[in-house]
Amino acid sequence: MWQADAVQLAQLDPAFRRNLINCLPGYKPLHLMGTQNAAGVTNLALFSQLIHLGADPPLVGILFRPHTVKRDSLENILETGVFTLNHVRTDAYVQAHWTSASWEESEFAATGFAEEYKAGVQAPFVQDSPVQLACSLVETQTLAINKTILLIARIEQVFVEEKGLREDGSLDLNALGIATVSGLDEYHSGQSLGRLAYAKPGKIPAKL
Amino acid sequence: MWQADAVQLAQLDPAFRRNLINCLPGYKPLHLMGTQNAAGVTNLALFSQLIHLGADPPLVGILFRPHTVKRDSLENILETGVFTLNHVRTDAYVQAHWTSASWEESEFAATGFAEEYKAGVQAPFVQDSPVQLACSLVETQTLAINKTILLIARIEQVFVEEKGLREDGSLDLNALGIATVSGLDEYHSGQSLGRLAYAKPGKIPAKL
Repeated sequence: MWQADAVQLAQLDPAFRRNLINCLPGYKPLHLMGTQNAAGVTNLALFSQLIHLGADPPLVGILFRPHTVKRDSLENILETGVFTLNHVRTDAYVQAHWTSASWEESEFAATGFAEEYKAGVQAPFVQDSPVQLACSLVETQTLAINKTILLIARIEQVFVEEKGLREDGSLDLNALGIATVSGLDEYHSGQSLGRLAYAKPGKIPAKL
Repeated sequence: MWQADAVQLAQLDPAFRRNLINCLPGYKPLHLMGTQNAAGVTNLALFSQLIHLGADPPLVGILFRPHTVKRDSLENILETGVFTLNHVRTDAYVQAHWTSASWEESEFAATGFAEEYKAGVQAPFVQDSPVQLACSLVETQTLAINKTILLIARIEQVFVEEKGLREDGSLDLNALGIATVSGLDEYHSGQSLGRLAYAKPGKIPAKL
């Protein structure tokens, strides 16, 4: 096996190390975050550093890089308190990646994603996204170790294409055609291996 | 589209809501965490609430449910300061799921994963895992909103099967045969859609 310890990791070429470390989590959630500032200028940004924090209340955590340069999404959320999360369809991954360019204008207009507005939500959704979430800011925490910012948000509204919602509340991500990402630049579709029964000692978990 | 607002989410059947909210992130990282207590008793537990926190220094965050009941992995880490993260091969996902049962004995022996030890790491790795990480505890934070615990750790050693490491440091997760998870019980393989060039305005990102 290829291996590196902490000293060797620190001595790696910076681009090599960035690629490697960003790939270590494995497959990651992939979301387009829609925001707007108080003047109504919209922004759309791709996020993979997202973590489920709890189901009741429904909470999600999103990590932002240090707030030392202009970060439109974060500033818009701090200004308005709301944002949307929109899953990326596998046929829209190139367009989604393109939102990460340094656009002067809104990434919606620039990359061709259509804005969608829903009652009571002061942030734009991505039209045709199979899973759309409206979220409200709970709090932000700056992590002392590297000054990244953990934003904690509450999921206020959920929109799911009917074909992907099972009777037990779980989502069929394959049917919804949702993409996942690894590292900084590789996108993937998923293929279900199976669902498994609640695990108990003494009996190998059965497929559901 | 199916939809629910915060009030409707709160009124859903608890099992339905748990399935739904846990599926909302999409595809999630999947890791087996190896620990041992000071007496050398080992533990192996499945985690999907894991987030990349930074590449330099290499940091990862892992969320634990509230520490109101016995949590072997967390207690072992607080005791020893170290743990391992091991990616799950697609052909081992049933066995990996089985580690989540309430075993009296070590999940290694119970579910048939072989322990592997490496120089300088006081925690067991999962033998034959294609990506193995040795991590050290940096700190834990209890999130006020729901009492979950965010554990921040530093990646101290990286072991990767050579076939999955590209020249630029990125990992070929498909070649490594790594699994991902959605919700509480569904496992998936990944299929690459492509890698994309650094995004710039005015030019649709090219495939690498």
